[in-house]
Amino acid sequence: MVYATSDGSAGKRLRVGMVGGGRNAFIGAVHRLAMRLDDQIALVAGALSSDPENAAASAAEIGIAPERSYADYHAMAKAEAARPDGIEAVVIVTPNHLHAPIATAFLEAGIDVICDKPLSTTLGDAEALVALAKAKKRRFVVTLNNTGYAMVRQAREMVMAGELGRIVSVHGAYIQDWLTKPIDAEGQKQAEWRTDPARAGQSAVLADIGVHAFNLASFISGREAEAVSADLFTAVPGRRLDDNAHVLVRWTDGARGTILASQTSPGHYNDLSVRIHGDKAGLEWSGGRPEELRFSPYGEETRTLVRGGHGSTAEARRVSRMPAAHPEGYIEAFANFYRDAADIIRAHRSGGTVDPARAAQVPDVVDGARGVKFVAAAVESNAAGGAWTAARFGG
Amino acid sequence: MVYATSDGSAGKRLRVGMVGGGRNAFIGAVHRLAMRLDDQIALVAGALSSDPENAAASAAEIGIAPERSYADYHAMAKAEAARPDGIEAVVIVTPNHLHAPIATAFLEAGIDVICDKPLSTTLGDAEALVALAKAKKRRFVVTLNNTGYAMVRQAREMVMAGELGRIVSVHGAYIQDWLTKPIDAEGQKQAEWRTDPARAGQSAVLADIGVHAFNLASFISGREAEAVSADLFTAVPGRRLDDNAHVLVRWTDGARGTILASQTSPGHYNDLSVRIHGDKAGLEWSGGRPEELRFSPYGEETRTLVRGGHGSTAEARRVSRMPAAHPEGYIEAFANFYRDAADIIRAHRSGGTVDPARAAQVPDVVDGARGVKFVAAAVESNAAGGAWTAARFGG
Amino acid sequence: MVYATSDGSAGKRLRVGMVGGGRNAFIGAVHRLAMRLDDQIALVAGALSSDPENAAASAAEIGIAPERSYADYHAMAKAEAARPDGIEAVVIVTPNHLHAPIATAFLEAGIDVICDKPLSTTLGDAEALVALAKAKKRRFVVTLNNTGYAMVRQAREMVMAGELGRIVSVHGAYIQDWLTKPIDAEGQKQAEWRTDPARAGQSAVLADIGVHAFNLASFISGREAEAVSADLFTAVPGRRLDDNAHVLVRWTDGARGTILASQTSPGHYNDLSVRIHGDKAGLEWSGGRPEELRFSPYGEETRTLVRGGHGSTAEARRVSRMPAAHPEGYIEAFANFYRDAADIIRAHRSGGTVDPARAAQVPDVVDGARGVKFVAAAVESNAAGGAWTAARFGG
Amino acid sequence: MVYATSDGSAGKRLRVGMVGGGRNAFIGAVHRLAMRLDDQIALVAGALSSDPENAAASAAEIGIAPERSYADYHAMAKAEAARPDGIEAVVIVTPNHLHAPIATAFLEAGIDVICDKPLSTTLGDAEALVALAKAKKRRFVVTLNNTGYAMVRQAREMVMAGELGRIVSVHGAYIQDWLTKPIDAEGQKQAEWRTDPARAGQSAVLADIGVHAFNLASFISGREAEAVSADLFTAVPGRRLDDNAHVLVRWTDGARGTILASQTSPGHYNDLSVRIHGDKAGLEWSGGRPEELRFSPYGEETRTLVRGGHGSTAEARRVSRMPAAHPEGYIEAFANFYRDAADIIRAHRSGGTVDPARAAQVPDVVDGARGVKFVAAAVESNAAGGAWTAARFGG
Repeated sequence: MVYATSDGSAGKRLRVGMVGGGRNAFIGAVHRLAMRLDDQIALVAGALSSDPENAAASAAEIGIAPERSYADYHAMAKAEAARPDGIEAVVIVTPNHLHAPIATAFLEAGIDVICDKPLSTTLGDAEALVALAKAKKRRFVVTLNNTGYAMVRQAREMVMAGELGRIVSVHGAYIQDWLTKPIDAEGQKQAEWRTDPARAGQSAVLADIGVHAFNLASFISGREAEAVSADLFTAVPGRRLDDNAHVLVRWTDGARGTILASQTSPGHYNDLSVRIHGDKAGLEWSGGRPEELRFSPYGEETRTLVRGGHGSTAEARRVSRMPAAHPEGYIEAFANFYRDAADIIRAHRSGGTVDPARAAQVPDVVDGARGVKFVAAAVESNAAGGAWTAARFGG
Repeated sequence: MVYATSDGSAGKRLRVGMVGGGRNAFIGAVHRLAMRLDDQIALVAGALSSDPENAAASAAEIGIAPERSYADYHAMAKAEAARPDGIEAVVIVTPNHLHAPIATAFLEAGIDVICDKPLSTTLGDAEALVALAKAKKRRFVVTLNNTGYAMVRQAREMVMAGELGRIVSVHGAYIQDWLTKPIDAEGQKQAEWRTDPARAGQSAVLADIGVHAFNLASFISGREAEAVSADLFTAVPGRRLDDNAHVLVRWTDGARGTILASQTSPGHYNDLSVRIHGDKAGLEWSGGRPEELRFSPYGEETRTLVRGGHGSTAEARRVSRMPAAHPEGYIEAFANFYRDAADIIRAHRSGGTVDPARAAQVPDVVDGARGVKFVAAAVESNAAGGAWTAARFGG
Repeated sequence: MVYATSDGSAGKRLRVGMVGGGRNAFIGAVHRLAMRLDDQIALVAGALSSDPENAAASAAEIGIAPERSYADYHAMAKAEAARPDGIEAVVIVTPNHLHAPIATAFLEAGIDVICDKPLSTTLGDAEALVALAKAKKRRFVVTLNNTGYAMVRQAREMVMAGELGRIVSVHGAYIQDWLTKPIDAEGQKQAEWRTDPARAGQSAVLADIGVHAFNLASFISGREAEAVSADLFTAVPGRRLDDNAHVLVRWTDGARGTILASQTSPGHYNDLSVRIHGDKAGLEWSGGRPEELRFSPYGEETRTLVRGGHGSTAEARRVSRMPAAHPEGYIEAFANFYRDAADIIRAHRSGGTVDPARAAQVPDVVDGARGVKFVAAAVESNAAGGAWTAARFGG
Repeated sequence: MVYATSDGSAGKRLRVGMVGGGRNAFIGAVHRLAMRLDDQIALVAGALSSDPENAAASAAEIGIAPERSYADYHAMAKAEAARPDGIEAVVIVTPNHLHAPIATAFLEAGIDVICDKPLSTTLGDAEALVALAKAKKRRFVVTLNNTGYAMVRQAREMVMAGELGRIVSVHGAYIQDWLTKPIDAEGQKQAEWRTDPARAGQSAVLADIGVHAFNLASFISGREAEAVSADLFTAVPGRRLDDNAHVLVRWTDGARGTILASQTSPGHYNDLSVRIHGDKAGLEWSGGRPEELRFSPYGEETRTLVRGGHGSTAEARRVSRMPAAHPEGYIEAFANFYRDAADIIRAHRSGGTVDPARAAQVPDVVDGARGVKFVAAAVESNAAGGAWTAARFGG
């Protein structure tokens, strides 16, 4: 066992800038932790807040030079594109409704994009971004970051290798409790924008967490959603958007399943899981125990596959830093994602490419658009009394 | 801690006969184990098989006197009704399609009924049985036996006491693996009749296990199904009936949820579970760890409530035989069910009654009919492309 | 899958009587549940209490005929031995110090013995009982009943089959919380006698639960204790005997390990476990999840072996009543024990014998004596400042 | 909930150098990951290998300037001490036997020390280092890094706050499988030096992992070892040192317990755990689920306390980066350790101090010496046939 310890990147770190992620924001700081772990990325510019004072102070705090702290993302795109040492990629960590305009601005400036999920709040925006990225020939990564877990990668490899046989059912769920009470109405900032149709989109719970469950189920199983039948509802009286979604899914190649998302379920802080059954075996992963896979070949007893353990696949070993049972977690998974994203963008910018199988593991703008299509289809089905609704992007 | 040790019934055991349950049958022997544990029931008559030779041999094996072993349930109903020491109740453990005619025969003969689930294979039969039991003033118990688990009883008590607050979501699932391969086509007896429309009814997976998940979710939550939207499918090519069901449910009083049933899911031998969330707390029970409840008051940490443990409710203590962590299991739960059923029938036959709160815990013919209605509604919804379909019995 | 449903014993049930187990006693009623499950045993006589009134009332409650309810075990042994339909075996469920005199009385009367653990409170008594049982040619079973669990039987089979390789370490533990507070000083009856040197013996915690952990570790591993080094202590000030024991063990054939016993450990109601490692694999069983074994071949991933599941051994299947994941528990394990005991005694009394491999699974007077020797050696080692002390009975 | 996202350290990063940790080493790269996560430390110098070529190449790979890469730690101590921008602390990640001489060299040069465990291979060296650090007034941190887990910190706080009451028992265990086979004899590098008396010390298993279990049990419980009674043994024939240790412990203030360490236990990759019982509650932590504490107040049901969850203590919140159930793991714990160490050393070097309660959480040279004393006492007890042996450092 040799582990990827990921230092030694001096001189070739990818130069990135960040839009969003100033003080009081949540996810921007998480991105920065993930970027830093493997020393592959240099964060050198930012438009960290729409409030100029906050933007400048936030930049100072995290060591961005004053002249590369911008009050406005348009200015940032323009200025950085003009610098010889300008950023190679932008990291977008704003509320949902800003993803599309910001990404557009940087793509237009010839800068690659690393954008948080959901890709956009409308299907039209998603389609436009797919087209623009293609036209501009830019890499566009969407941080559906749970795909970075080593055992999620292993699960995908096992499905692709046929270890489950013909896939029969694919279930994903993302269950939380933090919106059990009306904290959005009471002004909690994270809750407030995530339940605001103007900033979150048509569905709060699907945009915030449902797309993760959908993406992960799709990523591991290798299936896209063909059609959905959805029941979306709001548990907390007065909330402006849904906080629970129960979605039946018909996947490509004949599998069926469900995607459940809830933010009002006491007992589940942050419970993401995927369960897949084929005619040869079953496979389950849960974010609460991310270092394990439960693998059940039909006719044999269930095995607990451990990251770094005796049954590790090549990909799981590639993205492991520590031996078995020295737990890696959320940040490590996110860092795997960033390491791959950095390699893909660096290779692309220098006229090269990374191994296609490896590149395929990093969700891109099309994967992001698939998530947006899934949300749109679920909203439409719900409005139509649960009618089966086509859900395949580009399909 | 005082435990119900349940002996001391000499002289007052309920006299029962059994229809079905001969050699090579499965569930009849399980019923006998459950009856025997607490010594409240004497099995004194039977029509154990439709094959006369098997019926006689089976009766001899289990100590039923030859003159009370019958080749035919009609004969049994007539003869036992005429005896001064005749059976007080019949236990019906045949394939599904025979439940209704057999129950009818014994009700007509004035004998109380303990019938396996599902109550019947058609909604019409279920309605007729409800009416007949009422007309004949007979007790009619349906062995939705998972309601007998001590911690299931405790869960129901906690919901009724308001510990979860307003119920928001109710999920039930029953996941198995035993039909992953086409063993029905290969002649495995249990699989063969359970997937035969003539004997199992319109849905195999819902009749066999889905009704258990539905009943248990309803029992604990105190909610009935208002409407369902269902996706039923057959994973194994050539199978005559479905083997998987994904059902969205709208429950009474505004809760939503899902009922999932599968018999083709490697990794799950027999996995029954219920998960309920209210605006005050969440509560979860799994048949794989039946001695525990996972209880999560919002804003506090999850507690593992243990049967016989410090947080036991009165009902859970009443149906416990052993101290905490001396595991009770499936047979004990089934025996709890039988003990209550015996008390209810004895009380009724002697002109008395048991505590209504206790009686309400034992599923009766109406609960059985609710299960049949649920199956019928799911089948109808599935045929109608997932349209929401009314699912409340008598509603 | 064919399951042992264990009815059909009419006419050949073993006739037993019980000493101890009257109203207010705990373990006697548990024995009766276990006897009843498989219908192999008829309880027809008893000296249920040393208080004549209680004895008679208790007998009436459980259906023992008045003329076979005795106020005194000497009278019972004599009278039953004289009856043509007298008991074939006596079940002894009194406090520890009475085991030896009662067993002696019945052995002398030619009646086989089923005695609760510990066999006796002194090593001398244990040796005398071994000699007497041999001299009288009587079967003498000691209810070290945890050996009845199907997965414990499977674990033993796997060790014997060499699946673990050379055994390196063997650990057993039995951890409870019920004596955390001084309830013995406050008059709780079960606590009171169990911490009384006159009735419990030299060590409370080892006699009550430590012998179970020791016996189970020995049963599964096939090893006896060669020597022990012990630290016994009393957590609750004023308690008359120890309530915690930490014992290092050197097992036969070179394995090492520990036996831990505690009755003052909040968080553990009743936590019995065994962990064994060989140079080929590890194996673990816990009474909290008795239906599973954790099996870890070196160089492969851990498998969860399930009772009734795909990897069941012959013995585990023989003692299963229910399919996989229909949980069996403490009573079922105890009933397995009783079924085997009944078969052994019936065979012996009719001049026959059961399969020696099967008989070897039922702890007898020598196994009981091994437990007494273990306790005596631990007490001696503790008194000698932890010096290694020979612990092998007859060794 | 506000989370420490730990960026913003520009300009004040602690300057450190590393001795050991070149290519092919294991733990040095892990230290670097941990240093990097929170951006508090700049690694600017190194003597990464005793092989000059390897040292230079390793330094180049991780971005250490060539002029600050040394072939020899004596040269490094001297040169760095002379530079105005010289290192403030040295990180020692060599095999055990070199810890003492290297630490001595840097202390003499006025440089603070961060040293891997065990502090030294002899008690004399440990005593000398304690004295030298005191004489030189230098901070000396020993990377008993498991103390950095948020829930370990919370556990310690809970014990200190009296939530467990009077401590009765304290158990620690560290169980691995990686030395099950004779890989040391086959040349595996990590195994080879760890089982070599010349480099590992008197006990392999205690020096490598036993000290972690001991330190963690001591850290959480606030108890030191008074005396030990030990059984050390070698499971693998031909191995030069022990690979298993079973140690009885008498802790200060009257608690008792055990420390178990094994490297030949299939089924346990890396299983560190602590279990503590007081007369008010029990508390358990396991490295396999590091984000949880199992907390069991006597008379109430067990709660699962989750990092970042509703019951978090102040210290646990302080060292959390992510919300509940976004798993943090080994590297995050190690980074917590490094962040605290950096703060302590920076404060000390600038004439200040950190909060003493916080400083007390970071194991120092005395804690390191306690571990060495524990190992020495266990070795002595084992040699003396398990005799209780004084184990308190300075006691």
